[in-house]
Amino acid sequence: MARPQPPPRPWRPSGLVSLLTDYGLDDPYAGIVRGVLHRDAPHLRDVIDLTHGVPPGDVGTGAFLLERSWSHFPAGTVHVAVVDPGVGGERAILIVEARGHVLLGPDNGLLAPLIESEPLALVRRADERAPVRGASATFHGRDRFAPLAARLVEGDPPASFGERSEAWVRLERPAPERSPDGRVTAEVIHVDRFGNLITNLPFQWLAEAGGPEWRARWRCRVGTETLPLVRTYSDAPEGTAVALVDSYERLELAVRDGSAASTLALGRGATVVFEPSAGAAGKRRKKGGA
Amino acid sequence: MARPQPPPRPWRPSGLVSLLTDYGLDDPYAGIVRGVLHRDAPHLRDVIDLTHGVPPGDVGTGAFLLERSWSHFPAGTVHVAVVDPGVGGERAILIVEARGHVLLGPDNGLLAPLIESEPLALVRRADERAPVRGASATFHGRDRFAPLAARLVEGDPPASFGERSEAWVRLERPAPERSPDGRVTAEVIHVDRFGNLITNLPFQWLAEAGGPEWRARWRCRVGTETLPLVRTYSDAPEGTAVALVDSYERLELAVRDGSAASTLALGRGATVVFEPSAGAAGKRRKKGGA
Amino acid sequence: MARPQPPPRPWRPSGLVSLLTDYGLDDPYAGIVRGVLHRDAPHLRDVIDLTHGVPPGDVGTGAFLLERSWSHFPAGTVHVAVVDPGVGGERAILIVEARGHVLLGPDNGLLAPLIESEPLALVRRADERAPVRGASATFHGRDRFAPLAARLVEGDPPASFGERSEAWVRLERPAPERSPDGRVTAEVIHVDRFGNLITNLPFQWLAEAGGPEWRARWRCRVGTETLPLVRTYSDAPEGTAVALVDSYERLELAVRDGSAASTLALGRGATVVFEPSAGAAGKRRKKGGA
Repeated sequence: MARPQPPPRPWRPSGLVSLLTDYGLDDPYAGIVRGVLHRDAPHLRDVIDLTHGVPPGDVGTGAFLLERSWSHFPAGTVHVAVVDPGVGGERAILIVEARGHVLLGPDNGLLAPLIESEPLALVRRADERAPVRGASATFHGRDRFAPLAARLVEGDPPASFGERSEAWVRLERPAPERSPDGRVTAEVIHVDRFGNLITNLPFQWLAEAGGPEWRARWRCRVGTETLPLVRTYSDAPEGTAVALVDSYERLELAVRDGSAASTLALGRGATVVFEPSAGAAGKRRKKGGA
Repeated sequence: MARPQPPPRPWRPSGLVSLLTDYGLDDPYAGIVRGVLHRDAPHLRDVIDLTHGVPPGDVGTGAFLLERSWSHFPAGTVHVAVVDPGVGGERAILIVEARGHVLLGPDNGLLAPLIESEPLALVRRADERAPVRGASATFHGRDRFAPLAARLVEGDPPASFGERSEAWVRLERPAPERSPDGRVTAEVIHVDRFGNLITNLPFQWLAEAGGPEWRARWRCRVGTETLPLVRTYSDAPEGTAVALVDSYERLELAVRDGSAASTLALGRGATVVFEPSAGAAGKRRKKGGA
Repeated sequence: MARPQPPPRPWRPSGLVSLLTDYGLDDPYAGIVRGVLHRDAPHLRDVIDLTHGVPPGDVGTGAFLLERSWSHFPAGTVHVAVVDPGVGGERAILIVEARGHVLLGPDNGLLAPLIESEPLALVRRADERAPVRGASATFHGRDRFAPLAARLVEGDPPASFGERSEAWVRLERPAPERSPDGRVTAEVIHVDRFGNLITNLPFQWLAEAGGPEWRARWRCRVGTETLPLVRTYSDAPEGTAVALVDSYERLELAVRDGSAASTLALGRGATVVFEPSAGAAGKRRKKGGA
């Protein structure tokens, strides 16, 4: 697949670095990365922990959270993503430019959803010009990613650390499906701290028919339950499960003042079906649950 | 209730923002808020996580921790508090000025103890002049609180985002009680990481009789146990439960090198009684447990 | 023990402070410390959380993590370590200078491994010249360590807060042992988030014989298992336990894409033996597991 070449745009670092890892916070790994960033990048302004709570080695969850988060940061941010069970092996380090941001990660699928959602993204594979500090074979966040991010913060252009590449590891992940009868089958891919069940279904799949009343045209089936689509948590009676568009722009199951995961006894991997509601054709409902 | 009008004091932002939420740290919500703050506030100096560990939706705990914490920050700090089960509904956003700080939070009681402890606080309700970014109905931390905090960091005065108001949602919360025989009944309102049982009793209730030996004049009854009041953890024999004044200036039950919650098998909601000690009248004890 | 006197080197603060504590992140203690640092140190550039996840009161773990982490930060950093079950008692506060860094901690062994690993370290005991803010007997992180760190960030030299001392509390901790037959007995002293079992054995004990093939000359015995020494996680078949040199430069037991703690059913305190492998004398193996 040939990707279009965007007009050249010089890299203008903002001094900001975001981190997304599976290091957790009980060990000093994330703090050490931050120390190295300061050591190597005098112009560093801030390091923002997106999260260090990705489950260990869970590339799919890391990829989802990163792809839904990075664009809220200012242009000029270097995003460092390290969920890297293959550390020390042959896997490459990718350097991705998109919308004035740079993203670094191992070539194991972690950046794939982001690359595929940005048609103008430029992908490079770091080569021997990328800096290496220390000799560990187990902590590239400290010894490779942080030194490279620091050089980018200091203004070195991504092109000085690797050649363009169209080859990167794709991520196997569940995709929503639309059946001939109009039903859409989605899957829970993440459960957040509130017990919200976040699916892989972009709201545009349901809202594309347009109109302010699109929510009333659908209902959600999960197990033996039928849930209405509402606009926000407070549109539901307390303790009642509903479906809504969450801040990731995905369909999510939630319980007001409670946990959908507990109430529905569901978790990651659960199937969620959205089907046209009985009254959808005639648009008889006004505002529905919304 | 008419509140006194303080002399006008111009808002002088320090470039600091503190965050207190129930987002947890395993999801990127807190990191996204920080990214948006940087995007919208070029003069941002630092974002300080007070905590993101408030139990989900627990407005009372968030209110307590915020009210006991904010004044340790420098004047000019914007404190953003989001424990907000009613997000997306009709609840207002409050903008509070106190001692040169600004505090933002949903009008659901989260800021009430702080407002009520500061007679000169100015309370405003954010109106349509407050910025909104994005269209989510579920993540006002990102789409409303952060953009508003950013404007304040950039120097816009609170008065430019809302009119004064004397109406805010009060918080139902347990209060300590003094009985005619001099006993004081308190309640455990928080258990910290060390297993310390933090009560709602300000130390002034017991110390107001004055004198350096006030601790010897009281003893603490909890369940079938009687605990002495001491000055600090190391004044207790190892493994022994004591009562002391904690860093929140509240009476707290603690076990040296252990957990009071485990040792006493108590938790939030437990009743703790402080009663005059037998020898208190005669002041016969010297230093007592202190 | 007389320690050599290094040439005088003026203290040049970088504006950075690192924190290592047992406060956890669910309470606002760490955030309050950061707020106080900003209040008292206008030149503060960043506060880096090394970790707040040291188990409550676990001085040994805090000491290990600090000693293995601090040198990755730039010179000029003030490292504040607070694992302090004796807070409020008689224990002193130590001020240590090493390689252009300053480290603060209670004199309870927390800084001892670091001091002992740095022959040129200067140790001082804070005296009455060190600042005190607030009156708490339970939160010296806020009321003593942060105000002192702030003064150091502002450029006050360590010598202005305490006199030199050669007396500090040593830390009782397990040491690896070499037996006459060449076997080395180590102990698991920490388990990280990935379930890696980190021992107290510096890799130099095994690698000192030199040569690139040193790993092949050893094998690891733990319980009834015999583990090979490899270079990195990806050198092991999935699900197989191996021993390797970790980013702390210690021998560690790990399972690729899994948890060594679970797979081997071991934890802190477990004994791990490294013994010369059968073929080691003849160097017959080429590259072995490495």
